[in-house]
Amino acid sequence: MSELRGYTKRALELLKSKQLGIGDLVEIVRMDDHNATYTGIIMPRYEHADDMHIVIKLKSGYNVGISLKKIQEIKKIDTDALPNKKIVEKAIMNNGSSKEENIKDDSSQLPKILLLSTGGTIASKIDYRTGAVTPTLTAKELNESIPELRKIANITAKVVLSEYSENIVPQNWLQIANKVAEEYTNSKQYTGIIIAHGTDTMHYTSSYLSFALTGFPLPIALVGSQRSSDRASSDAALNLIAATKFLVNCKTNGVYIVMHQDTNDQTVACHIGTRARKNHTSKRGAFQTIGGDPAFLVTDNKISQNVLQNTFFESQEFIPKIKLDEKVVLIKYYPGYDPNILEKIIESNVKAIIFEGTGLGHIGKNMYSVIKTARQKGIFMGMTSQCIDGRVRMTVYESGRDLLNLGITPLEDMIAEVALVKAMWVVGNTQNYDEIKKMMLQKFASEFSTGDNNNG
Amino acid sequence: MSELRGYTKRALELLKSKQLGIGDLVEIVRMDDHNATYTGIIMPRYEHADDMHIVIKLKSGYNVGISLKKIQEIKKIDTDALPNKKIVEKAIMNNGSSKEENIKDDSSQLPKILLLSTGGTIASKIDYRTGAVTPTLTAKELNESIPELRKIANITAKVVLSEYSENIVPQNWLQIANKVAEEYTNSKQYTGIIIAHGTDTMHYTSSYLSFALTGFPLPIALVGSQRSSDRASSDAALNLIAATKFLVNCKTNGVYIVMHQDTNDQTVACHIGTRARKNHTSKRGAFQTIGGDPAFLVTDNKISQNVLQNTFFESQEFIPKIKLDEKVVLIKYYPGYDPNILEKIIESNVKAIIFEGTGLGHIGKNMYSVIKTARQKGIFMGMTSQCIDGRVRMTVYESGRDLLNLGITPLEDMIAEVALVKAMWVVGNTQNYDEIKKMMLQKFASEFSTGDNNNG
Repeated sequence: MSELRGYTKRALELLKSKQLGIGDLVEIVRMDDHNATYTGIIMPRYEHADDMHIVIKLKSGYNVGISLKKIQEIKKIDTDALPNKKIVEKAIMNNGSSKEENIKDDSSQLPKILLLSTGGTIASKIDYRTGAVTPTLTAKELNESIPELRKIANITAKVVLSEYSENIVPQNWLQIANKVAEEYTNSKQYTGIIIAHGTDTMHYTSSYLSFALTGFPLPIALVGSQRSSDRASSDAALNLIAATKFLVNCKTNGVYIVMHQDTNDQTVACHIGTRARKNHTSKRGAFQTIGGDPAFLVTDNKISQNVLQNTFFESQEFIPKIKLDEKVVLIKYYPGYDPNILEKIIESNVKAIIFEGTGLGHIGKNMYSVIKTARQKGIFMGMTSQCIDGRVRMTVYESGRDLLNLGITPLEDMIAEVALVKAMWVVGNTQNYDEIKKMMLQKFASEFSTGDNNNG
Repeated sequence: MSELRGYTKRALELLKSKQLGIGDLVEIVRMDDHNATYTGIIMPRYEHADDMHIVIKLKSGYNVGISLKKIQEIKKIDTDALPNKKIVEKAIMNNGSSKEENIKDDSSQLPKILLLSTGGTIASKIDYRTGAVTPTLTAKELNESIPELRKIANITAKVVLSEYSENIVPQNWLQIANKVAEEYTNSKQYTGIIIAHGTDTMHYTSSYLSFALTGFPLPIALVGSQRSSDRASSDAALNLIAATKFLVNCKTNGVYIVMHQDTNDQTVACHIGTRARKNHTSKRGAFQTIGGDPAFLVTDNKISQNVLQNTFFESQEFIPKIKLDEKVVLIKYYPGYDPNILEKIIESNVKAIIFEGTGLGHIGKNMYSVIKTARQKGIFMGMTSQCIDGRVRMTVYESGRDLLNLGITPLEDMIAEVALVKAMWVVGNTQNYDEIKKMMLQKFASEFSTGDNNNG
């Protein structure tokens, strides 16, 4: 009997009783789905996994976890004729891909998509011993691991970075933007660009690209996954396939975050890159459009426009402004915030401060004196709200009017994170206070919502 | 004709054509509602109001805005026999309250509720010239302005503070908590306590009270309003009435935020005070329970338990710990966060740092060195997520494991703002690092959700 790494208690018992091991080719009949039969190779599981699932690799290349409760029958397929497990695996993969290869030959006729990988879970593999995930797949491997992609587009894969997105810094945004602009300039052959990216800070990167690549003529889809490709519940393939379909069919431009929408596996949402936020730590449908609905939905082969969409960019002319200045801070105000912290920040020569105020855009009056200092030093100050949803309105209450008088600029319903990124971009492009203020309030890339989200 | 302050264009035209003015007693027949008839006094409107509504004060004391489109008929009620408008107003009010007064006499038999006011919109009046709102109502006026309250409970109203909640500081939390404890100790007569409070930082205050008053035997309802009482769309009365009904009928204890739930005027939600957040700047249903549903719903006279509720407090013994230390900071991490800022903060002798990390609880590796310094100085560091919803899990990715090794404590699914307030409370009660860590992870007042919010 083969090893049973990662299998414990009930799952281990079942496999032992059937004399099955990792690497064995099996057929599983599932109780629901009209007794669907799954054929695949038993995969190892990670150390801390539950004991209620058997994971097999299907011939499509995907792993699927099948609940013990649903297993009506599990039996080994006779592989005695085959010399070893590696060959079995290969046989299974080939079984699926003989067709694929023909399609691959045809893919040269399909629309060309550029896939840039930057790292993140989508380009990760799980370590079966610890359950930990490390970013090891290259863009090429990522592309090749999902055979369906080759039926939709002719994908060229390139690596830009290999970082989890919590480690992405503004200098990486410049790298990505420059790579996109350079590829576009060198070759006009692409229909769209996929950027595989970690989800943690994907909305920061999508915001930067939206501003720096204003007017970019091709659609750009940032794609990530919340679960790595070799986990049964992975959303990597679904998101990549949907993004490819979207880019090939959307007939628009702009920067979108293309991610799983629901708990089911049917709908993928395309969020405007400057209006989205990661609102859940672990759920696959972690991203949400703030103050509205996703711009597009991808369900199977249907791409539907989901909201009355304005043009993504205000200017249709592509004039890249790939610059930024990191001397910008985001200050979330809370009761007990020590004004001395802001004073120290001001002393470090920041050029812009984005406040995440309370409610309609407020900050306690104990902060007024240090805000005055900032204004005197010519620092731009913009107001957003920690409520996340809704518009700031600083004329309703005394506090708001005080802050307006102190020189704080209300930033409508721009999301705090987006305002931060935009400010880095703006102060990278101009040093003039009036120009900074003008640009912060000017719409470049759908960063203000058009809907009335004040009601209710 | 009387003055028509605040009325413009279409509304002004209508009033002029009917020779109506502010202070006139009118009868309006509305097109829907089976041609409901409203009788009331025409109220002034504020300068920047729309021109599509007439606002009248009903005999109940409430103002209602009626859309011009819905007005089938508007006519003046003959008041020639009455000497002046003041008397008309009084007559209308009395008309409604003759019954109320009887009820008032009976109210001594009703459950006793203590209403503490701290300021905020709920205790505010609109300035009809500017549309601005100022906090002028006392708790007594607030109580008296809503005659229905007297049918439900015998309310004793007292003023603790008069501040908009953006100006509330941790010292005010102590004032409120001490007042609650003192009132309870001096008089065992109350069934529950209402705290009228601004909405901006209501969830910070509710969190503090939940920890400092652990085991408090009476239910506490924090109530606010998103629109001031004299605006047609005000939620002040609805929320106060619902809170009173809730306190009288809920038969439980704990600290709740009781606020408007929907766009309709039917349901008011009672959120657990340590699991709620203001998630919209202006909407009346601005508060949401994070990672779950509100604990109770109040619809008309029905109080329904909405979730399988555990006891609010872990300990049922009331041992007030009304202390805090403000030497705590909340750090929201973002790409480009300058580690020097954190270094300056550490130098200012903070005792605890709550991080709002990305995703499952991550911070960029450029911060590791300064985090090491903080750990060496014995500063407690806890991790929450800026995703708001979902649980932090720092064992999945390399970054998370690095941060665990650097001594950061993952705080499950505690909301960042709640973790900040809890840390101020904890370090106010103990200086010992191990004790701080233990208390931060110990459940006192429903601050961790029990539901599994990792799915999907």
